[in-house]
Amino acid sequence: MQLTTIFNSREREMEAMQILHMNNGEGETSYAKNSTVQRKIIAVAKSMVEEAVLAILSENFPESMGIADLGCSSGPNTLIVASKIIDIVHSAACRKGLSPPELRVSLNDLPGNDFNDIFQQLPDFYKKLRQEKGGGFERRCFISGTAGSFYGRLFPNNSLHFVHSSSSLHWLSQVPAALENNKEEHLNKGKIYISKSSPVSVVEAYASQFKKDFMDFLKSRSEEMVSNGRMVLSFMGRRSADPSSKEGCQQWELLAQALMAMASEGLVEEEKIDSFNAPYYAPSPEEVRMLAETEASFLVDRLEAFEIEWDGGGGGGGGGYNDCAAGERPSKGQLVAKTIRAVVEPMLESHFSKEMDMDDLFRRYAGLVGDYLSVNSANYVNLVFSFVKKD
Amino acid sequence: MQLTTIFNSREREMEAMQILHMNNGEGETSYAKNSTVQRKIIAVAKSMVEEAVLAILSENFPESMGIADLGCSSGPNTLIVASKIIDIVHSAACRKGLSPPELRVSLNDLPGNDFNDIFQQLPDFYKKLRQEKGGGFERRCFISGTAGSFYGRLFPNNSLHFVHSSSSLHWLSQVPAALENNKEEHLNKGKIYISKSSPVSVVEAYASQFKKDFMDFLKSRSEEMVSNGRMVLSFMGRRSADPSSKEGCQQWELLAQALMAMASEGLVEEEKIDSFNAPYYAPSPEEVRMLAETEASFLVDRLEAFEIEWDGGGGGGGGGYNDCAAGERPSKGQLVAKTIRAVVEPMLESHFSKEMDMDDLFRRYAGLVGDYLSVNSANYVNLVFSFVKKD
Repeated sequence: MQLTTIFNSREREMEAMQILHMNNGEGETSYAKNSTVQRKIIAVAKSMVEEAVLAILSENFPESMGIADLGCSSGPNTLIVASKIIDIVHSAACRKGLSPPELRVSLNDLPGNDFNDIFQQLPDFYKKLRQEKGGGFERRCFISGTAGSFYGRLFPNNSLHFVHSSSSLHWLSQVPAALENNKEEHLNKGKIYISKSSPVSVVEAYASQFKKDFMDFLKSRSEEMVSNGRMVLSFMGRRSADPSSKEGCQQWELLAQALMAMASEGLVEEEKIDSFNAPYYAPSPEEVRMLAETEASFLVDRLEAFEIEWDGGGGGGGGGYNDCAAGERPSKGQLVAKTIRAVVEPMLESHFSKEMDMDDLFRRYAGLVGDYLSVNSANYVNLVFSFVKKD
Repeated sequence: MQLTTIFNSREREMEAMQILHMNNGEGETSYAKNSTVQRKIIAVAKSMVEEAVLAILSENFPESMGIADLGCSSGPNTLIVASKIIDIVHSAACRKGLSPPELRVSLNDLPGNDFNDIFQQLPDFYKKLRQEKGGGFERRCFISGTAGSFYGRLFPNNSLHFVHSSSSLHWLSQVPAALENNKEEHLNKGKIYISKSSPVSVVEAYASQFKKDFMDFLKSRSEEMVSNGRMVLSFMGRRSADPSSKEGCQQWELLAQALMAMASEGLVEEEKIDSFNAPYYAPSPEEVRMLAETEASFLVDRLEAFEIEWDGGGGGGGGGYNDCAAGERPSKGQLVAKTIRAVVEPMLESHFSKEMDMDDLFRRYAGLVGDYLSVNSANYVNLVFSFVKKD
């Protein structure tokens, strides 16, 4: 199946749901083994999560509290946020001398996500809750899985008090519609995302798909959340108003270069690269703020922009590789390539032929990233928004 | 890991949660391909499900309705019940000229269940709902997965209106505690479940584990269900008051014979068979009724006992094999063996060594079943209870 041919009419978003997922399993290229950057992003947003959860509890301590983590993925990061939120609620209740609310925790991701991995972590997770919190608290904590796109409805009306999403909302519901509808004509030749050389129509197609998706997201959540419910969303973005600025695009630029190098050796068809457009968008804070104002269900309570090094700040020995012998330590370029591969391989596989040599592609990519980093510093810009649902 | 050695102290039930599951995947021995008997059981209970759901809707048509299917498993049977219930609710609302309630459908099984399979069926399921029902009904129907043992709490307080469980409650939460605590002494030599030759202590150990489990089940559900909520439970049982009667035990008797034949050829250690006790119990209707009276949260509204042929009534060409050429049609013995294998292989694998030849075991079993069926008729007795939660 090809990304460009399967994304037709109403089925597009549905098909996107099937192929947009991280690399499953526990292997060398799995998301489970290559999610240091995403873990750091969760860590930097922690204080905003805490602030939001405490605000909910201080306003109206609920008897039963609905919590959702959207785009929870699988692997070691999945339960970090849920665990943190549970800790915050439990401690706050203890401080107030109240019994903790019943917690309904929903873990959401697309249907292709490895939910089996999550569910198999739960017995140990509940055991730890029992040991650490006691008092039968774990028996009032109900964790469930919900598979589906967060650009549509996922949960019952007025059922959620707190919504969290990390490293997910930069994924669009589909390749920008305007590019897909026009797919005979390749508007973004040799590129796979917005680039300095992209025509305005490409930039507009991306911005308008993000607009539609983000508004759909807010509308769906506004129906699911209670008044004064709170939402902490963190995703890739940019500080610059220019969508083609390096901070939002450079990682895709280099991946396009790696693909084009393979095309020049006849290893990939150039047409395949021309017809691929990543379903991704890195917005500016102002764009997001304006969309929230237009949709009008939420107030922006707080916004922060963080920078995260491409390799998660641990290149050349760090990033979870501290135990490796020196000789085995991946270079910065390799680390970045692993992080990106774990996230984009399934969608590349579905567009390019199964025979495309992914090891070759990401070896080239690691080289290009290494060269780039030897003369540039490169950070992802991560935006963290804290929203309050209006009355 | 071995069933007998891992089931210690408080961890027993937790460990049982990890290994009690059907054969995953889509292969020849998978539950997905060998669940005709369970599908027939769902079909015979259908009218009781319909009656119960309509009773809920006639008493107090809810705005939001919580539904749980406990022990939903994976494969083609999983969404049959949910789909049926959704149909009943939708039609009833249309007949009354009301808009259908928001539906919260929880699919539950143990953490080892293949939830990925279920979640991957959901996009098509929602698509069908949209096409068949229209009016945005599918957007008010929220399906989620909950992994955990139904012998404990799974759902929030007062959140469920209807609970269904098919072919699951005959599985105990663990090997009967009295047998496990005494595991140096093998009380049930050469057998793997209650048998005519089993000492009273074995029968008592099984009955008392079932009692504990079933009471825990009712207590947990009574907290989760609203007043006048209803519950249709179907599971293997027996008509006879005698727990060692053939109708409840014969399939295990023959499996023990197949294992003992392998032991006599040195292919399995006899001690391994002596120390294996299936975590299963087929109760009589009176036993169940008495436990419900003792627990006291539910009234028995209706009870039926059905007989289902061991091969699902389709041996020698039926049972989903209608398309096979005559030469490929499995015999009755083979069909029964496949049905049982799909269900018990994971627990056998965890107790006996990984090297045990399962193909050999189930070939012998198919032979013994075939011989038995050539001179006996053999049916499972399936009990279907309809319960009402008291005020």
